[in-house]
Amino acid sequence: MDASEFRRRGKEMVDYVADYMEGIEGRQVYPDVEPGYLRPLIPTTAPQEPDTFEDIINDVEKIIMPGAASPACTELETVMMDWLGKMLQLPEAFLAGNAGEGGGVIQGSASEATLVALLAARTKVTRRLQAASPGLTQATIMEKLVAYSSDQAHSSVERAGLIGGVKLKAIPSDGKFAMRASALQEALERDKAAGLIPFFVVATLGTTSCCSFDNLLEVGPICIKEDVWLHIDAAYAGSAFICPEFRPLLNGVEFADSFNFNPHKWLLVNFDCSAMWVKKRTDLTGAFKLDPVYLKHSHQDSGLITDYRHWQLPLGRRFRSLKMWFVFRMYGIKGLQAYIRKHVQLSHEFESLVQQDPRFEICAEVTLGLVCFRLKGSNKLTEALLERINNAKKIHLVPCHLRDKFVLRFAICSRTVESAHVQLAWEHIRGLATELLKAEKE
Amino acid sequence: MDASEFRRRGKEMVDYVADYMEGIEGRQVYPDVEPGYLRPLIPTTAPQEPDTFEDIINDVEKIIMPGAASPACTELETVMMDWLGKMLQLPEAFLAGNAGEGGGVIQGSASEATLVALLAARTKVTRRLQAASPGLTQATIMEKLVAYSSDQAHSSVERAGLIGGVKLKAIPSDGKFAMRASALQEALERDKAAGLIPFFVVATLGTTSCCSFDNLLEVGPICIKEDVWLHIDAAYAGSAFICPEFRPLLNGVEFADSFNFNPHKWLLVNFDCSAMWVKKRTDLTGAFKLDPVYLKHSHQDSGLITDYRHWQLPLGRRFRSLKMWFVFRMYGIKGLQAYIRKHVQLSHEFESLVQQDPRFEICAEVTLGLVCFRLKGSNKLTEALLERINNAKKIHLVPCHLRDKFVLRFAICSRTVESAHVQLAWEHIRGLATELLKAEKE
Repeated sequence: MDASEFRRRGKEMVDYVADYMEGIEGRQVYPDVEPGYLRPLIPTTAPQEPDTFEDIINDVEKIIMPGAASPACTELETVMMDWLGKMLQLPEAFLAGNAGEGGGVIQGSASEATLVALLAARTKVTRRLQAASPGLTQATIMEKLVAYSSDQAHSSVERAGLIGGVKLKAIPSDGKFAMRASALQEALERDKAAGLIPFFVVATLGTTSCCSFDNLLEVGPICIKEDVWLHIDAAYAGSAFICPEFRPLLNGVEFADSFNFNPHKWLLVNFDCSAMWVKKRTDLTGAFKLDPVYLKHSHQDSGLITDYRHWQLPLGRRFRSLKMWFVFRMYGIKGLQAYIRKHVQLSHEFESLVQQDPRFEICAEVTLGLVCFRLKGSNKLTEALLERINNAKKIHLVPCHLRDKFVLRFAICSRTVESAHVQLAWEHIRGLATELLKAEKE
Repeated sequence: MDASEFRRRGKEMVDYVADYMEGIEGRQVYPDVEPGYLRPLIPTTAPQEPDTFEDIINDVEKIIMPGAASPACTELETVMMDWLGKMLQLPEAFLAGNAGEGGGVIQGSASEATLVALLAARTKVTRRLQAASPGLTQATIMEKLVAYSSDQAHSSVERAGLIGGVKLKAIPSDGKFAMRASALQEALERDKAAGLIPFFVVATLGTTSCCSFDNLLEVGPICIKEDVWLHIDAAYAGSAFICPEFRPLLNGVEFADSFNFNPHKWLLVNFDCSAMWVKKRTDLTGAFKLDPVYLKHSHQDSGLITDYRHWQLPLGRRFRSLKMWFVFRMYGIKGLQAYIRKHVQLSHEFESLVQQDPRFEICAEVTLGLVCFRLKGSNKLTEALLERINNAKKIHLVPCHLRDKFVLRFAICSRTVESAHVQLAWEHIRGLATELLKAEKE
């Protein structure tokens, strides 16, 4: 949607809201629909080609408004998470469908998803151990619980461990910054021998620093064998898996208990919208369920409905699935795939520009929209370049450390980015590098 | 703002956004402002009288846009939380000011605020005990930690205990559904004698069931004496404290470590916006702080800026303080006070209608916008009435249990509610009660 269509549609929406407010007394306080009403009204998958805006807005009045905030908010979320799960070719077990044991939920951020998964895993292992040895206290168990992630995992994983009150150990990644079987197995054996209890592994697909991928096909079977909860954090990279050519990066997801990525990062859905799936919804609800009278309702034991308040940390919820519904329909799957592909192509364009300049080096494999690069030589040199880049305020780069190297990260992430912007940014960086190297020589 | 002004202003905003998108390449990537730039540009308190919409929108361009998303998002939040804290006459220690140790943060929900407070208290007591006895493990301590709240506290308090891995004990409330000194002190003594470690008390101002108020002036000094973190959950009632006549309900807040209420509940700010203050920001940041390279920035040790990511569970944040800024200025403090007073007046109007009908009884003191009432006689009778009310779908009531009584809750909460709506609702309820009682006799 370009700016001129945005003006038109935006103003129509303002009128829609105003009309709603003016006519609100004519609407029913409580909806007539029954739980489960929404799914049959909506296709089972996202459209390949874009729908028109008229079609979408007509469906809001026809499908959403009769379901009011509840149950429409919950039911659209379940169906949209199924749509998205199918776009990613997630295993059937992660989908809610009509009677599945799994399903998806929108969280606010990947940090929350990791924490929710860790807490659910903590409850599950605690109950299992207490069932086997009824005398065990929760504290005795918690003292021995260990969670694992790669040394490249996001800091929010460490934070989840802190909050959950359990140890978190970093598994040394390999030369391509990936967690592999041998390092994980070694840590598990050492900890079990020391009387500790491994219970949770976070595998990262697309690390923050360099977009590296843990080896799911190696890590997954270990988690199955050891009866350890496997959570996959694909916060950034997950969006790319809607393209068949990137889907192999997700192979091994079938070994996971929970999977999460952020459509708000790279799938054109505005912040916040973090998509999380679990294979067994009772693992989440078992950890968080409390049912006071003022939150009871007549349908809660019917199996027809989903009480998302048991799937998350906050109690209140927003109608975030509307954003997904609009975006998926306005772009169509093909439009979203084209968007991802364009970004990946632009990052390879930047990569090849860097490679053509012998003063620079690429520091990690470029798979998606992130290029890690640096000036050859000391870290001080690249640090000085970053200072010049960020002081010039024409582009903004965020650095990282890869082992002992200080590295710049060039990320393709704007909705409107074009090749011209990439070229301009590179010319700018090159120019500043030339100035810097000249100044260094003097 | 009525619907016709909403149409006009809404469309202006659509154009503003479209203009921004069309002109984005002319804007700077990185702001020129220095940390701390915003506070001097904004009054130190919210206006008494409404500002015009033009004034506000002009300030967006003048004050917010030069500060981009960062630091404007953080700095406006700190200043708005100070504005709101002053509206509530919070003790100075809770305000950030220019160099305060305390300050406010916007959370997503009261559940999150309670959990964040509990986790911070858990870290604080663990560190204190470990400093005194370095051999103590975290698990040994956690096993003994006990949190307390009234038996009327919201279920999210119990949930915070579950997530935090600590015991939570319910203190029996008194005849007015309030937590009092004697019951709390008794529980503390009993638990300490059993070798447990009390560390956290949640006092509720305006309980969910019946809007009762824990006795802060009694509970507060006990928490001080016992060195226990006191968190106040005023999720619903907090908004009323902007009126001097309701502010005495908050007396004793000076004893608390943290205080929270939801402007999204009753202060005209759209969901979500849950306002939380702490006296010592280091209590929060101490519990959650992790600093990977990709989140470092040059100002983080300057003391000038606030890193809200250490104040909350998620990492990402939205620019929610803009909603507060618009609402506080569009209504002015007087307009917001008038709004609260109107709702309280309408609930008293409903209360007096109920009192005039001898078939009904009021079940708890009406202080703010909630009226708890029931048909005299068996619970079955009121349950049957509720079924008729909710089946009729003209109004929607949510019930609760007060001790052994099943009670209906009439809540005044719509922005546009008038006396006529209250009258209509009561006539409707009365009519259904008459039908019910007649059917019961037959």
